[in-house]
Amino acid sequence: MLRQPEQLRVFVESYLDDLALTPELGSLAEPMRHALGGKRVRPVLCLATGDALGLEPTRLLPAAAAVELVHSFSLVHDDLPALDNDEDRRGAPSVWAAYGEATAILAGDALLAEALRLALTYPTPGVARELTDATLLMIGGQQLDLEGAVDLADLHRLKTGALFNASVMCALWAGDVPLDEHPPWRAFAGELGLLFQVVDDILDGDGYVREVGVGGSRRLADDAAGRAQARLAEISADTQVLSEIVDGLAARTA
Amino acid sequence: MLRQPEQLRVFVESYLDDLALTPELGSLAEPMRHALGGKRVRPVLCLATGDALGLEPTRLLPAAAAVELVHSFSLVHDDLPALDNDEDRRGAPSVWAAYGEATAILAGDALLAEALRLALTYPTPGVARELTDATLLMIGGQQLDLEGAVDLADLHRLKTGALFNASVMCALWAGDVPLDEHPPWRAFAGELGLLFQVVDDILDGDGYVREVGVGGSRRLADDAAGRAQARLAEISADTQVLSEIVDGLAARTA
Repeated sequence: MLRQPEQLRVFVESYLDDLALTPELGSLAEPMRHALGGKRVRPVLCLATGDALGLEPTRLLPAAAAVELVHSFSLVHDDLPALDNDEDRRGAPSVWAAYGEATAILAGDALLAEALRLALTYPTPGVARELTDATLLMIGGQQLDLEGAVDLADLHRLKTGALFNASVMCALWAGDVPLDEHPPWRAFAGELGLLFQVVDDILDGDGYVREVGVGGSRRLADDAAGRAQARLAEISADTQVLSEIVDGLAARTA
Repeated sequence: MLRQPEQLRVFVESYLDDLALTPELGSLAEPMRHALGGKRVRPVLCLATGDALGLEPTRLLPAAAAVELVHSFSLVHDDLPALDNDEDRRGAPSVWAAYGEATAILAGDALLAEALRLALTYPTPGVARELTDATLLMIGGQQLDLEGAVDLADLHRLKTGALFNASVMCALWAGDVPLDEHPPWRAFAGELGLLFQVVDDILDGDGYVREVGVGGSRRLADDAAGRAQARLAEISADTQVLSEIVDGLAARTA
């Protein structure tokens, strides 16, 4: 019996609440926890992938949490005055607005390092490698954004797609799924990342909406959702909940 | 026949010169390479430890370079206006002064992530774990420093000692040295980190010099050097060059 996304989210929240940060980080713990808000889209995707593969959430949680910490690291640094200069994040002050720039820089660094520490609790390096590679692509994407990148597909692949990919693939690495079963999962994750970002653009009225309008963006999103479902159908696992996640991401309004 | 530190430094320089950064980092490659100046104390220590253990430098170089990249990451972020506000580093503009704050934040992030990528080229996770743990301690130390820490020994252990420890220990992990041979090496590395920092304080006229004067600091340094040599003497490996490195660090004037 597959768990619903809402059940998986409860696992994530509970794991993050109980997560023991490195004691030597001292007072950075508070801004780090402040940064760890959010909808948990990526860790839930990681756990749902694991569930589809018949893996217990306990086995997946360090990887799922690591993905969420990398996501939070990127937001904390992207919000800084020198980058996006965002004072608000999810209806609350961003980390630098609440704790100062110096602490935000260090809290972001610490979130990335803690993510790797979690990823390295597995006996094999697959989860940590996947996450490190995704992080490098995200950083490259943020630099492209700073420079005013012209290729939106490229930008989205790096800034959003890479970590969506890692959310799915880390579940496979954590579960020691044989390498020859990876490709359809990776293809699925790629479509999901695109879907998420196009819908983001529709909700924010930027990105693809500026390039191809709302109608064109909606078609791009629906096409990505269709391809994601087609990829899922190729996978010999119980992908029912993942299929519902695709539908949910296509229809989301926030 | 052991290699001299100067020979090991040539290996490090050549490896770093040829190091292929993740292509998607794009224009961040230039500020990252700008950041990678320095005396190579830590990677040479890593290679010298490997040499003492009879390991080939080629086997150690990814770990040694990873340690240097973590060191560079920490300097790039520490130099930022919100932290130490240093415009100069090693007689040249610091990364933020040369490329702007936004790029410096991302270049620092990328140096840390590339360090982990290198550490994760080993088949087992020991090098990456050691480096991640050291990075977390360094970040905690920098936060203590921001807050005006009172315990200098604690501050030095985190800010400097942790990465010296990792420089030695990563060689052991890279060489698959059995766990029961690790403790004397770790003890040696701890003394070396203290020695390095006390001599730094003597050269800069701060830290321990403010607490116990130049004479008192000199005695602390000489005591740490003596203990480092005593630890080396307990190790059944060819530690001649490491012993010379201890003498060199104790006597350094720059």
